[in-house]
Amino acid sequence: MSAPIYDRVALIGLGLIASSMAHAMKAHGLAGHVAGHARSAESRAIAAEIGFCDSVHDTAAKAVEGADLVVLAVPVGVMGDIADEIGPHLKQGATVTDVGSVKQAVIDAVAPHLPAGVQFVPGHPIAGTEFSGPRSGFATLFVNRWWLLTPLETTEATAVARLRALCEGMGANVDEMDAAHHDLVLAVTSHTPHLIAYTMVGVADDLGRVSNSEVIKYSASGFRDFTRIAASDPTMWRDVFLTNKEATLDILGRFTEELFALQRAIRTGDGQALHAYFTRTRAIRRGIIEAGQDTDAPDFGRTPAKAG
Amino acid sequence: MSAPIYDRVALIGLGLIASSMAHAMKAHGLAGHVAGHARSAESRAIAAEIGFCDSVHDTAAKAVEGADLVVLAVPVGVMGDIADEIGPHLKQGATVTDVGSVKQAVIDAVAPHLPAGVQFVPGHPIAGTEFSGPRSGFATLFVNRWWLLTPLETTEATAVARLRALCEGMGANVDEMDAAHHDLVLAVTSHTPHLIAYTMVGVADDLGRVSNSEVIKYSASGFRDFTRIAASDPTMWRDVFLTNKEATLDILGRFTEELFALQRAIRTGDGQALHAYFTRTRAIRRGIIEAGQDTDAPDFGRTPAKAG
Repeated sequence: MSAPIYDRVALIGLGLIASSMAHAMKAHGLAGHVAGHARSAESRAIAAEIGFCDSVHDTAAKAVEGADLVVLAVPVGVMGDIADEIGPHLKQGATVTDVGSVKQAVIDAVAPHLPAGVQFVPGHPIAGTEFSGPRSGFATLFVNRWWLLTPLETTEATAVARLRALCEGMGANVDEMDAAHHDLVLAVTSHTPHLIAYTMVGVADDLGRVSNSEVIKYSASGFRDFTRIAASDPTMWRDVFLTNKEATLDILGRFTEELFALQRAIRTGDGQALHAYFTRTRAIRRGIIEAGQDTDAPDFGRTPAKAG
Repeated sequence: MSAPIYDRVALIGLGLIASSMAHAMKAHGLAGHVAGHARSAESRAIAAEIGFCDSVHDTAAKAVEGADLVVLAVPVGVMGDIADEIGPHLKQGATVTDVGSVKQAVIDAVAPHLPAGVQFVPGHPIAGTEFSGPRSGFATLFVNRWWLLTPLETTEATAVARLRALCEGMGANVDEMDAAHHDLVLAVTSHTPHLIAYTMVGVADDLGRVSNSEVIKYSASGFRDFTRIAASDPTMWRDVFLTNKEATLDILGRFTEELFALQRAIRTGDGQALHAYFTRTRAIRRGIIEAGQDTDAPDFGRTPAKAG
C-alpha cells in the first residue's frame, strides 16, 4: 500500500474507465475517499451494490464537493455540460482531469467553465475493452498501458506531477504531449481503425449474397478481429468522430489513397507490389510485441480452443 | 485413439497448416503413416528434427507414392506446378485435397493434372495464426474451427465422406459449398479484412507526422488488432489477392461505398447516422460469441497484463 495521493477523488461517470480506476485506486490505496456520480440511476445502484465507491451521489455537483481530484469519465459530447454544472462547486486548488479519447475538443468545452485556482490536466488512458458500464471495470486495466496527459500552458507543474503519480500508481506509463498532436496520433492508432472496422462489419451485415450466419460461422479467418473493436460503445465513438473530425478525415484520406493503390495492384496483377507491401507491415507488428503492447501467442485460435 | 482413416497421408508443404495436421493426425491416430515434403531443405530438416512426419522426402513425387490422401499445403500460386509434378505418381483411387484460401483458382490449376481414378476434394480449413513455417504447428489448431470442402460435380461421395471424417477427427466442423460461393464468403470474412488491415498498418508506417515509436507505444487503442492480421505470410496473401481478384474487388467496392457514407456523416456532423451504424454492428459481434467462434473475455488488455 502506498500513501494516498489524493484525500478525496470524485468520479463523474461510472463506466468501464471510472470503475476500473476505482478498483485500482482501492487496490493500491491511492485515494482516501472515492466519491462517484452517474447520470443513470441504474448505474448508481450497480456502483453502490459492487461497492467500488465510498459514496455515490445523485448529482455531479454533490459528488465533487471537497474533492482534490475530479475525473470526468463521460462521453466527450457531454463534458462541457458537466463542467458547467460542477464549476461553481469545485474546491479551490482542486485538479480536474478527464479520460476522453479526444483532447482539443474537451479542452475547448471544459476549460471555460473552470474557476481560477482549479488546475486542468486533460488525460487519456489508452486502455479499454469492448465492454462498457459499471460492471465491466477491473483493477488491472491500466497495467503496462499508456496514459497520455495534455496539460495546458497555464497548468501548474505540481498538479501534473501529482496526477502522473496517480496514473503510475495504477500501473500505467505516462507520456505528456500537446492536445493537437494527441488527436492526430489517436486518429492513426485508434479512431480511423475503429471507423474501418465498423465499416467492414457493416458491409458484411448488409450483403444479401452471403448470410449473416455464414459471416459468423467463418469469422475466425480474420473478420473476428474487426468485430471485436466494432462492438465498442456507440455513443463514445459517435462523439469521438464528431469531435476529432479534422484529424480523422485527414488520416481517412491517406487510407483511401493507399487502399486504391493496393486495389490497383490487385486489378493489374502486380504481385511484386503486393508482396513488398505485405512484407513491410510485418515489421510494425514485431515492434508492438517487443514494446510489450501485445503478446506473441498465436491466439487466432483463441486460448480456450488451444487449451482444449 | 480412432482407427486410422487413411493408411498413408502425404503432406506437400510443411508450414503451419500441414504441420498442425500432422500433429493432430498423430494425436488422434488418424493416419497410419505421414509422409512429408517441403521445397526448402531447411523446412525438411526442421520437420525431421521435430518428428511430426514419419518420413520426409526430397521431392513431392516421392512423397505421394502409395499415399491414399495427398494434401497440397503450398501457396495457391504454386498448386498447379505441384499437381503437374505429382500427377503421374498418384496411386489409383487416391484422394487429393488442398488447404488453399481460394478455391476456384485452385480447381482450375490442379484438376487438369489429375489422372482419371483420382478423387479431387478441394478444402479450406478456416484456422490459422499470424505465424508460419514448420515450427508453428500445433495439434489443436482445428478444434471447433470450420473446414470447408468444395467437391467437384464429378467427385465421388465416398471420397468426400472419408475426408470429412479426417477433418472431424482433428476437431473441425465441416461444411460443403460450391467453389464460387466459398470465394465470395471468404472475400467478405477474410480477404477484404486482411487487405484493409495491411493498408491501415501501411498508412501508419508511412506517416511522417506520427513516429513509428508512437504508433507502437499507443497501439492498444485499436491499431494492435489490425497489426495481428497484417503480420500474416506475405506470399500466401499475395496469391490470395491475385487468385480471388473478382470477389475481392467486388467486396472492396462495397466497402469503399460504405466508408464514404460514414466519412460524409462525419464531415456533416450527422451524429444520428453514426450512432445507428455503430449500434447495428454490435449485433454481429454477439452472434460470433454465441457461435463459439470467439471468447467474450475483454482481452483488449490481453491476458498477461490482466493476470499481472
